[in-house]
Amino acid sequence: MSSNDEMYEELLQLSGKAALLGSCGSVLGWDRETYMPTKGAEHRAEQLSLLAGMVHEMSTAPRLGELLDALRDCRFEGADAVVRQANVREMIRTWKRAVCLPGRLVSELARVTALAQQNWVEARSSGDFGVFQPWLEQIISLKREEASAVGIPAGGEAYDALLEEYEPGATSSEIAEVFSGLRQQIVPLLAAVGDSSCRAPVEILHRDFDVSKQEQLARAAAELIGFDFAAGRLDTTAHPFCSGMGPGDCRLTTRYDGTFFSGSFFGTLHEAGHGLYEQGLPAAAFGTPAGTAVSLGIHESQSRLWENLVGRSRAFWEGFLPRAKQIFPESLGDVSLTDFHFAVNSVSPSFIRVEADEVTYNLHIMLRFDLERALIDGSLSVADLPVAWDDRFEHDFGIRPQTAADGCLQDIHWSAGLFGYFPTYALGNMYASQLFAAASQQLGDLDRQIREGEFQPLLTWLRTHIHQHGQVYSAAELIQRASGEPLSDKPLVRHLQERFSPLYGL
Amino acid sequence: MSSNDEMYEELLQLSGKAALLGSCGSVLGWDRETYMPTKGAEHRAEQLSLLAGMVHEMSTAPRLGELLDALRDCRFEGADAVVRQANVREMIRTWKRAVCLPGRLVSELARVTALAQQNWVEARSSGDFGVFQPWLEQIISLKREEASAVGIPAGGEAYDALLEEYEPGATSSEIAEVFSGLRQQIVPLLAAVGDSSCRAPVEILHRDFDVSKQEQLARAAAELIGFDFAAGRLDTTAHPFCSGMGPGDCRLTTRYDGTFFSGSFFGTLHEAGHGLYEQGLPAAAFGTPAGTAVSLGIHESQSRLWENLVGRSRAFWEGFLPRAKQIFPESLGDVSLTDFHFAVNSVSPSFIRVEADEVTYNLHIMLRFDLERALIDGSLSVADLPVAWDDRFEHDFGIRPQTAADGCLQDIHWSAGLFGYFPTYALGNMYASQLFAAASQQLGDLDRQIREGEFQPLLTWLRTHIHQHGQVYSAAELIQRASGEPLSDKPLVRHLQERFSPLYGL
Repeated sequence: MSSNDEMYEELLQLSGKAALLGSCGSVLGWDRETYMPTKGAEHRAEQLSLLAGMVHEMSTAPRLGELLDALRDCRFEGADAVVRQANVREMIRTWKRAVCLPGRLVSELARVTALAQQNWVEARSSGDFGVFQPWLEQIISLKREEASAVGIPAGGEAYDALLEEYEPGATSSEIAEVFSGLRQQIVPLLAAVGDSSCRAPVEILHRDFDVSKQEQLARAAAELIGFDFAAGRLDTTAHPFCSGMGPGDCRLTTRYDGTFFSGSFFGTLHEAGHGLYEQGLPAAAFGTPAGTAVSLGIHESQSRLWENLVGRSRAFWEGFLPRAKQIFPESLGDVSLTDFHFAVNSVSPSFIRVEADEVTYNLHIMLRFDLERALIDGSLSVADLPVAWDDRFEHDFGIRPQTAADGCLQDIHWSAGLFGYFPTYALGNMYASQLFAAASQQLGDLDRQIREGEFQPLLTWLRTHIHQHGQVYSAAELIQRASGEPLSDKPLVRHLQERFSPLYGL
Repeated sequence: MSSNDEMYEELLQLSGKAALLGSCGSVLGWDRETYMPTKGAEHRAEQLSLLAGMVHEMSTAPRLGELLDALRDCRFEGADAVVRQANVREMIRTWKRAVCLPGRLVSELARVTALAQQNWVEARSSGDFGVFQPWLEQIISLKREEASAVGIPAGGEAYDALLEEYEPGATSSEIAEVFSGLRQQIVPLLAAVGDSSCRAPVEILHRDFDVSKQEQLARAAAELIGFDFAAGRLDTTAHPFCSGMGPGDCRLTTRYDGTFFSGSFFGTLHEAGHGLYEQGLPAAAFGTPAGTAVSLGIHESQSRLWENLVGRSRAFWEGFLPRAKQIFPESLGDVSLTDFHFAVNSVSPSFIRVEADEVTYNLHIMLRFDLERALIDGSLSVADLPVAWDDRFEHDFGIRPQTAADGCLQDIHWSAGLFGYFPTYALGNMYASQLFAAASQQLGDLDRQIREGEFQPLLTWLRTHIHQHGQVYSAAELIQRASGEPLSDKPLVRHLQERFSPLYGL
């Protein structure tokens, strides 16, 4: 029998190889969205399916299970004992999940979601929910099966088993509780904004903004906050994303609208926030949990922190508006800091989540969380979803979607089988505010730093408290260690009040 | 024991999987040259090395050998018997080659050539051959070992075993013979050009040519000759190439010089010629020899045919010069068809192969062929290479390189271990002329078609006679079938005389 150290090394080698092969798939996935010619789609699907299959095979190899079994109760010693322990712990978690899923279920999910997405596209464009309904029913049935297979936690519900994939350690009852607290404070804030006579001058963001200049400005902003373009790129895609492909290579994408300023600018800041996290993961730990992002919620916290906490702050635009004016003298030359800052922080109930402001955004998430949880536990039938959505929406936002495309068909997630994913967006907003508040406290005059374009201290703080740890600590532990407190809605509520009360004269 | 049909299917499945994985590497290789951020290089090298290793493992799997052994003497029947027979024959050939190479030799070659290329870059930029000499010595010793391992054909020489990788079925003595015949006719032609008082007005090609407009024109030309941009792309790289990534996806690259017209234009036509071959391979046969290009020489014939036979013809510019003038009214508005056609066909001895005209180009190749053959058989030592090169160059071209960068250090090939590769360039020129002559005879007034921008008949002819066959026939058979004659220097010599005699008043 080999020693623990030898087994641990073998473990790293096996998981490193699977991760390396998986990162080849990331390049192909990115290329598919950016530069692949249309007729390459079929061959690309075969390439990606081959890679995914091989990675899955490597990740569920019996030898991996043997090693993890042998190392399960091992107490490592020495300087990196914490890291080793965490690597074994996290690899056991993902290994168990992977081997619990029957191959038949994995391929059935892949097949059904591929077809469901096509039908979702059709349903959304025609506004006919009926086209999508049978597919969603199938998906929900498969996701319930998945939850049973991977194991529903004691005292929990099937939804928890799905949530675990995106936000390890979180439970739906905890999330429901924290959402409920948040909701009680957002609803009156939104009502007060609605009653206010102040209106953001949003028309200044809908002037002519040359696309190549937008790109220049977005790139400058991403660079300014610390995104390393020698280790990354910014390209154009239909749906923006950030893809970390391994050490030294992280790709951001955004999209441009020649008559709207905010989409590409805040979209790029958002993806750059994700990118800073990827660029801050320890390169030497690539392929191990210690070199991997901890959860979707924490990932989203990094994007939202830079997009909203920094990027929509008055301090940021005090420093950056002159630069934007230089690039767009005709469209922004006459715009005051006060007007610009108000415009990029306009609050207004609207149907589409991805276009929502900071105040209403989390209500969009809570709606989805409650409905998808009900779909999984069976208390809501798929047939009843459209009306349930519209009723709840009207209740929360005071407006009622007129088409399913503006309602329950707007997001791709469910058609892709992503149940338990949505709440991580709101968790991200809460984590972001909590981290930003802690950083503010510890870094002194963060406002001044932001105004003067000094982003290194904040980035270093995030590197130190979040990025460098990978999955060594859980999301909950990271938040506790960084802010001294468990997850709380208070920092987010405080942030929203401090930002929007003055703007809307509340 | 399973039936031949079942074994054949299994064979296709195994080879298809290896090819599919290999095509993932093509995407990563293309990305490395086009869009990869610089800091991604190290991780990319690991990705590519993993994929190459896995592909090699699949290509040498014992099961493949068993299947090939069992099918070796099988006589297939039915409609696609020829294709099946060819697939088995070609797979045996490549399988034997792959399994004959000891793993140690493969990795040693990979290691030494990687380092040798770095040293070649340094040697070329400093002009110090001594830096590169020990690396080239090592490479030659390894290539001799490779030749022995894969098997030197009876009555042949070690060089033949290397040549076989790039031009299956060709032998160095045949090539030497055909080169010798060609040489005897090029040398007097070049001398006559040198004696002529006519000079091409090349300065018209060195005016201002906006890079984005060059791209627009190059793309238009590639599209015009039939390259399908819905199944391909054109990007910018330091060194132009064409990479077929599988059905529906073929990527061309070129480079631009804002004060030189020809580089990007003819470079793109050249790569598009390669691309048309890739796009013409039978998609359903991807991953089998029947879906793979037959040889480098035939590949090069497709690029040179479109670049030179078509692209530098007077007929082509009769049709296309007005378009070029539209795009570059200031730089080309005053240029006559006669001057432009002469300028793009200027003949002048020069040191660098990749910049050579059609007349001198093959002399560059013959020099390399003779020297690399002598290096492999040991009759020329690496230490003596620079002087041998310069002497031969002076003899053939009448000018003597003043630095090794203009001499034996100019090409990357030897540093990359590519011995036996160079002659395929000249074979490509000969094949191209022979194919073009046959097409002219069969298609009627090809000149008129080219003048009027009707390229479909020529492309269809190439698809029919070359592209669709993959490796079902050897290069020699393809040429025989398409032109009714074996490889000959006559069509190339006739083409050169017909093109350059009028230009230079010979």
